[in-house]
Amino acid sequence: MAKVADRYLKVEPWAVVERGFDPKRERKSESLFSLANEYMGVRGYFDEGYSGDRLVGSYFQGLSEEMDVRHPQVFKGFIEQMAFSVNSVDWLYTRLRLDDETLDLATSRFRRFERRLDLREGTLSRSFVWETRGGKKLRVTFERFVSMVRPNLGCQRVRLEALNFSGPVALVSGLDFSPPHEIASGWTQTKASGSAAEGKNFWTCPKRGREGDVSAILGRTERSGQWALASFRLRADAGFAPRPMAAEKFIGLEGTLDLVQGSATTVEKIVVNRWERDRRAEAEAVWSAGMALAREEKDTTYEEALEAHRAFWAKAWEQLDIEVTGDAAVQQGLRFSLFHLYQTYHGGDARLNIPAKGMTGEAYGGCVFWDTETYCVPFYLFEDPKAARNLLLYRHLQLPQARRRAKELDCRGARFSFSTIDGTESCGTWQHGDLEDHVNVAVSYAIWLYATHTGDTTFLWREGIEMLLEISRYFASRGGWSPLTGEFGIWGVMGPDEYHMMVHNNCYTNYLVKKTFEFTVRVMGEMKRRAPKAWARAARKVGLEAGEPNAWRRMARRMRLPQNKKTGVFEQHDGYFDLPEVDVGRLGPSDIPIYKNWAYIRIFRHSMIKQPDVLLFLLFYRQDFSRRVVEANYDFYEPRCIHESSLSPGIHSIFATELGRTGEAVKFLRYVSRLDLDDYNRNTSQGLHVTAMSGAWLNVTYGLAGMRTDGERLFFQPTLPKGLTGYRFRLAVRGSVLEAAVDAEGARFRTVRGRPVAITLYGRSRQVNAKGLTVRLKPSRPAKRRAAQARRR
Amino acid sequence: MAKVADRYLKVEPWAVVERGFDPKRERKSESLFSLANEYMGVRGYFDEGYSGDRLVGSYFQGLSEEMDVRHPQVFKGFIEQMAFSVNSVDWLYTRLRLDDETLDLATSRFRRFERRLDLREGTLSRSFVWETRGGKKLRVTFERFVSMVRPNLGCQRVRLEALNFSGPVALVSGLDFSPPHEIASGWTQTKASGSAAEGKNFWTCPKRGREGDVSAILGRTERSGQWALASFRLRADAGFAPRPMAAEKFIGLEGTLDLVQGSATTVEKIVVNRWERDRRAEAEAVWSAGMALAREEKDTTYEEALEAHRAFWAKAWEQLDIEVTGDAAVQQGLRFSLFHLYQTYHGGDARLNIPAKGMTGEAYGGCVFWDTETYCVPFYLFEDPKAARNLLLYRHLQLPQARRRAKELDCRGARFSFSTIDGTESCGTWQHGDLEDHVNVAVSYAIWLYATHTGDTTFLWREGIEMLLEISRYFASRGGWSPLTGEFGIWGVMGPDEYHMMVHNNCYTNYLVKKTFEFTVRVMGEMKRRAPKAWARAARKVGLEAGEPNAWRRMARRMRLPQNKKTGVFEQHDGYFDLPEVDVGRLGPSDIPIYKNWAYIRIFRHSMIKQPDVLLFLLFYRQDFSRRVVEANYDFYEPRCIHESSLSPGIHSIFATELGRTGEAVKFLRYVSRLDLDDYNRNTSQGLHVTAMSGAWLNVTYGLAGMRTDGERLFFQPTLPKGLTGYRFRLAVRGSVLEAAVDAEGARFRTVRGRPVAITLYGRSRQVNAKGLTVRLKPSRPAKRRAAQARRR
Repeated sequence: MAKVADRYLKVEPWAVVERGFDPKRERKSESLFSLANEYMGVRGYFDEGYSGDRLVGSYFQGLSEEMDVRHPQVFKGFIEQMAFSVNSVDWLYTRLRLDDETLDLATSRFRRFERRLDLREGTLSRSFVWETRGGKKLRVTFERFVSMVRPNLGCQRVRLEALNFSGPVALVSGLDFSPPHEIASGWTQTKASGSAAEGKNFWTCPKRGREGDVSAILGRTERSGQWALASFRLRADAGFAPRPMAAEKFIGLEGTLDLVQGSATTVEKIVVNRWERDRRAEAEAVWSAGMALAREEKDTTYEEALEAHRAFWAKAWEQLDIEVTGDAAVQQGLRFSLFHLYQTYHGGDARLNIPAKGMTGEAYGGCVFWDTETYCVPFYLFEDPKAARNLLLYRHLQLPQARRRAKELDCRGARFSFSTIDGTESCGTWQHGDLEDHVNVAVSYAIWLYATHTGDTTFLWREGIEMLLEISRYFASRGGWSPLTGEFGIWGVMGPDEYHMMVHNNCYTNYLVKKTFEFTVRVMGEMKRRAPKAWARAARKVGLEAGEPNAWRRMARRMRLPQNKKTGVFEQHDGYFDLPEVDVGRLGPSDIPIYKNWAYIRIFRHSMIKQPDVLLFLLFYRQDFSRRVVEANYDFYEPRCIHESSLSPGIHSIFATELGRTGEAVKFLRYVSRLDLDDYNRNTSQGLHVTAMSGAWLNVTYGLAGMRTDGERLFFQPTLPKGLTGYRFRLAVRGSVLEAAVDAEGARFRTVRGRPVAITLYGRSRQVNAKGLTVRLKPSRPAKRRAAQARRR
Repeated sequence: MAKVADRYLKVEPWAVVERGFDPKRERKSESLFSLANEYMGVRGYFDEGYSGDRLVGSYFQGLSEEMDVRHPQVFKGFIEQMAFSVNSVDWLYTRLRLDDETLDLATSRFRRFERRLDLREGTLSRSFVWETRGGKKLRVTFERFVSMVRPNLGCQRVRLEALNFSGPVALVSGLDFSPPHEIASGWTQTKASGSAAEGKNFWTCPKRGREGDVSAILGRTERSGQWALASFRLRADAGFAPRPMAAEKFIGLEGTLDLVQGSATTVEKIVVNRWERDRRAEAEAVWSAGMALAREEKDTTYEEALEAHRAFWAKAWEQLDIEVTGDAAVQQGLRFSLFHLYQTYHGGDARLNIPAKGMTGEAYGGCVFWDTETYCVPFYLFEDPKAARNLLLYRHLQLPQARRRAKELDCRGARFSFSTIDGTESCGTWQHGDLEDHVNVAVSYAIWLYATHTGDTTFLWREGIEMLLEISRYFASRGGWSPLTGEFGIWGVMGPDEYHMMVHNNCYTNYLVKKTFEFTVRVMGEMKRRAPKAWARAARKVGLEAGEPNAWRRMARRMRLPQNKKTGVFEQHDGYFDLPEVDVGRLGPSDIPIYKNWAYIRIFRHSMIKQPDVLLFLLFYRQDFSRRVVEANYDFYEPRCIHESSLSPGIHSIFATELGRTGEAVKFLRYVSRLDLDDYNRNTSQGLHVTAMSGAWLNVTYGLAGMRTDGERLFFQPTLPKGLTGYRFRLAVRGSVLEAAVDAEGARFRTVRGRPVAITLYGRSRQVNAKGLTVRLKPSRPAKRRAAQARRR
C-alpha cells in the first residue's frame, strides 16, 4: 500500500483543530468539519460567505433530485434515470459588514484563525480576529451544531468582540436556497480529462414569509418535486432590530449591532428544517407542517438545545468510545471515525441509512451501498443493536422496489439496488449497478448476523424471513447449472473486487449465496416448528412455491466454490488463476489510481485486485475455515491487492494481526482511522469516506482484539501491537455490555451491565461477569510465510 | 432459424418491381430502391415530395457530422465523440402542381403505380397516372440514376403525358439541404422502449447562386464543418422558362410546362455534387471547385450520361453475374445482392469503402466494420481484384488513426477502429468498440488472402507489411501469458459472437492472431531475401525492435487454442463449455430479438451464440482442419446459434452443403440473397444489409460450388442442390477469368480469358484452359450426425 498521509490538522484526543487557515485545503477542511444528525448534514463551510474555493453543502438524507442517465446505447435493464441527494438550503447564511468592508476570509485581513470540531460534544466552532483596512479589530466566533435529539433542529451562535473600537456592525442572517449543486454535470459525464465541476441549482421557492419572529422559506426541487421548508429565528443580546429582506431563493433579516469595546455580543440562530416525503403534498400543507415544527421550538435557546445535544453525546460515548494509549494520532482517528459514523446514523429512522459519504459532499450522489451491511452493521450490532435493526428494516421498506428491479433484470424474487437513496437503482453504470449482485447477499448476510447475534426472532420471523425468501428466490432464478460439472453457480457478475467484470462464479458471491440458501431453509424449518402461523404468513406473502426450498437446498449443496484443494486457495472466480499477472509492488504514479491511468478494458484482464474478495468471505464466516486455509489465501491475495477501495486495507490488517504478520497493525490502524483526517486518498475534499470509518472500529475489535463471531459465539484473541500501550472498548451482547481492556499486563474482560457473557478466549470457553476476567496476552503464532507454496495455487 | 420471408415485390430476373403502392412499406421500398455509385447514394424516395411516412435520404460516403457520445461514467479509452454519415442534399427535389392541386401520393388520387429498379442498367423508374379532383389525368414518369462513370453526377428525368387534357402544369425543381437526419437522437440514446425517430438538420447554407444555366448551393455541416456543393441544370422539351427561387437551404427553378394531350413532355435534371475533404477550405474555394466540376458537365444530356452508365454495368455484369436456373427468386436475389454490393463499392477511390448499410439509410451511422475484410474482400478478390486492393489501401490510409487508437487503449502498434468513417473510432459503445479486437485481425487476414491469391508483392512489401508489423505489435502488447500453462493469449475481448462479452482467449481471435504473427514473420523472411531494401524501409518506418519478430514467433507457437482433443471441438473461449445452456430451438417471440427482450446482462451468461465464431475461422483457414474437426464443430455450434446477425446463416449453410447436411441449401440461398428483398429481419426500412449481400456470392461459390482456398490453391467440390437446375459464375484468378457452370450433366470449368488455371477438383489437381473441363457431380458424403458425440465436447 503506497498511500501517504497528508497531515495538516492538530492532534488532540477529543478534538480536530485547524490553527491558521490554508485556503488550498478549504474544501478538504469543510468535509472534515462536517456536522450531521442522520436527518441532515452540513459541511464545515464558512457561515459568513467566502469567495475562495469552497463547497457550500447542506443535505437532507433522502431528499433527492433526479437526472437522466445517458448511455451510448440503452439495453434492457439499464436505468435511464437516477436520484441524487441534492444540495439544499444554506441555513447558516450570515454576512458581516464593518464600515465599508464585508467580511470574506479570501480577501479580508485576519489573525488567530482557529476551527475546532469538538468530538465529545458534537460542536463546531471557529474564531479569528478580523482587521479592517481602517484598522478596526473584531474577534469573530461562530459555533454550530445539529441536534442529535431533535432531528429538524440546527443551531448557530455568532459572537462578536470589538477589540479596539466601539460602534456598529451590520449583520445579515438568513436561509439561502441558491447554492449550486456541483457534481450534477461532472458526475454523469466525467470527462476522462477531469473537467472542473460545474454547478446547477435545482430549487424553486414558491413561498416565503414570516409568522411572528419566525422567517421561513419553502423550496421545491425542479424535477423530483420534493419539498423542503426551512425556518429560523434570531436572538441577540443587545437591542437588535433587524429588517426583513428577501430574494428569489432567500429570506433573511438585516440589522445593526452596536458593539462596545471589550464586551462580547452574541446572535443566536435557531433553525428548523423539514422536508416532505409526500411528493404530491400541496405547498400550503408543507408550509403548515414545517411551521408547526418551528412553533415547537419557539422558546428554544441555543444553550438549552446544546445541553440536550451534549447529553446525547455523553451517553453515546459511554458505549462507543474506544480508548487507546500510546499513539495520539490513532486515538484521535478512532474518535473522529466513531463520531462521524454515529452522527451520520444512530438508528433514529428506519427510512434512513448510511450514505457512503454521509452528508459531507456530493460524490456518490448521497447514495447507500453494500458497505452498510458488510462494514457498518457489525459496528452497530455491537454498539447499538436497535440501530442495526433499523438498518435492516430500511432494506425491508425497499422490498417493493427490489422486486421491481429483479423483474427488470429478468429474474424473480428481489434484487436490492447497488446504489440507492429510496430503493430504486441509482447506479447508472450498468457494469456496477447491474452486475454487482453481491449487494443482495450483503443484506442476507446482515440478517443472519443480526438475528443470530441478538436472537431477535420478532424481526427474523417477519421482515427477515420475507427478505431471505425473496433473496434466495432471486439467486435461484439468476444462477445456472454447469453442463460440464453439474454444479450450480452464478455466471456473469462483478464481485466486491471491481477490477474483474462479468466474471463467472465469483467465489465470494457464490459462498454468500450458498449461506443464504442454507440460512433461509434453516429459518424456515425453525419457524415451521416454533412459529407456524408466522411461517404460513411469510410463505403466503411471497407466494412460495412447493418446490422452491428443495431447489435451494440442492443449489446450496451443489454450489460451485472453486478452490485448489492442495493449497487451500479459493479461486476468486472461474479462470482467475489463469489471468496474466501484474507486479503490484512495481506500480507507480503513472498507474495509480488505476481507473484514471489505465485504459478501462486493460484493468480487467490481469490478476491484480482492487480490494479483498475471497478474504472478505473468509472474515465473514471465519469459523468455517481453518487457519491453514486463511493463511494460504492471505498469502496469495495480499500481494495481488492494490487497495483502491477505502474498504480494503482494514480487512487485510485484521488478518495480518491474526496471522502474526509484521508489526504493521498500528500503521494500518493509523491509515484506517485517519483515512480522511490525513487525506490518504487525496479526495477528502469531495466528502468523507463515512462507511469506511467502520473499518477503524473493526480494526480494534476484529483486529487488535482478534474478535470473531459465528453469530452465536464470540471469539477473542487479543494482541497488543508494538506502538500501543493499551486499548479499551465496549460491546453490546444480548442486553449486556461487555468491556475489553488490553494492556501490557494482559487482557481484562468484564460486564459493565447485564448478565454474564460467554466468550471463547484464546480458544477456551470463558464466562465473563461484572467481576471480570484477566488473562495474559498470547502472542500470535509467528506463522511462516508460505508464499512460494501459495504461488502454486 | 425462425425467420420468415415477407415478400411483396415482383420477382423478375433482372429487375425489382413494385406494382401498386403500399404506403406502409414505403420506407422499406425506399431502401430497396436505393441507388449509389460509391461516392454518393440516394434512397428510392419520391422525387415529387410525399407527406406520408418516408425518409428522404441522400448521403455522400465519407461526408460526416459529429456528435457527443454520452456515458454514465467516462473511463480511459472511451470515445467521447463520434462521426456519422449525415443526411445531405435532396437533389431530386421536384414539385408538380396541376390546377390547384399539388401532387402528393399520400393525398392525391392515382392509378397504375409502378416502381422498377433495373438491375442490369442501374436505373430506377417510377410511373403512375395522377387523377386530379377536377378529373384531369396525367401520366407521370420519374427516372434516375447516379453515374458509375462520373462519381459526382446524378441524373433525373421527369416525363409528363396529359392523357385527357391540354394545358399548363407547374413544376419546381431544385436542391434542398433541409431534410432532417433522423437517427441523430434515437441512435445515441435509443430508449429501451423504442422511441420514434426524431429529426435534426445539420446544415447551414452560406452561399447559393447561379452561373449561366447552373444553379448551385453550398452547404456546411454544423459541427464537423464539412462542405458540400450541389449544382443542377434543367433541360426541358418545350418552351420552358423557369424563374429562379430560393430559401434558406434551398435553390430551385419554378416554371410552367404547357402539355398537349397525347404527347409527352420531359424535363431532365443534370446534378453535379461535390463534397470537400479539406475541412479548412474556404467557402469560395469550395464553391469554385464545385462549379468547375459542374462546367465539365455543361453539355451532358441525360441520355448520353445514361449510355456511359449502362456501358459500365454491361461490362461489370459480364464478370459479376451469377446465373441460376430453377429458382427465379434466388436468381433475382443474387443479382439484387451483387448489384447493391457493387454499386456501393467498385474500388474507384481508396478513401472509400463499404459501409455496413451502404448509403441506403442512417442505421450504423454510415460506418465501415470488419464485415468488409471478412465477408466482402473475398467477393472483390475473385471478381475485381483492384477493388480488393483498394479496400486494403483504405485501411493503410487509416494507419495514423489506428496508431493513435492503440495508444489510447494502452497498447503499441495499430488498432483499427471497430466502426468508422474516417479511421477514428465511431463506436460509442465500449463493449463493442473497445473489446472487439478481432477487427484488427480481419485486416491482416484480408492482407494475407489478397496478397497470397494475387501475388501482389508491390502492395504486400509496402503497405501490406507495414500494417502486418503494426497489427502484430499491437497483439504482442495486448496479449498476456498464462501463469498456469505458460501459453500466450488475448484476455478480455469480445469475439465475432457478440453474445459473450469480455471473454478470455476467444478462439477465433487467438487463431487469427497466431496466423498474423506467422504470416508477418514469413513475409519478413521473404522480403529479407527478395527485397531487402523494401524490408529495411518497412522496418525503419515502424521502428522495429530487435526482439520483436522472435517474440511474435514464440507467441504464435505458444498461442492458446482451447480444444477438446477427443471430439475436436474448439472451445469458443475459456470457460465456454461450462456455460449454462439455453435451448435455442425453444426461443419464441418473447425472446427474439434477444437484445430487445432479454436483460442485457442475461445475454452473456449462456452458451447461446449470436453468430458463427469458431466456424468462421474454420472457414477462413479450411485447409488447416480435417473434415472430422469441421463436422464436430458444426454439429456442436450450429444448434447453439440464434443467427441474430445478418452475416450468420450464410456461413452455416456453406458448411451444411460441404457436410451434405439436409437439402436446405436453396432455402438458405433464398434467405441470404433475399434478406432485404423479403425483409427477413424486419428492419430493411432502416437501410439494406449491404455487406451481408456478399453472403449471396459466398453461398454460390463457397456454398454450392464448394470453393475453398488457402490463398494459393483453389479447391472445388461442386454440388447441385434440390430445387436448382444449374448455375454459372466467373472468377478472376491471377489475370485469368475462370468460369464454372454446373447443371445436372456435371460441372464444367473453363477459362474465359488468360492463361490456364490450376484447381483442385474433388480432391484431384486439374488444369483448366479455354477448352474447358467437365466432370460429373459427386454427391457430398452423406455424413452421419455425430451430435451425441459432439455434445460431449
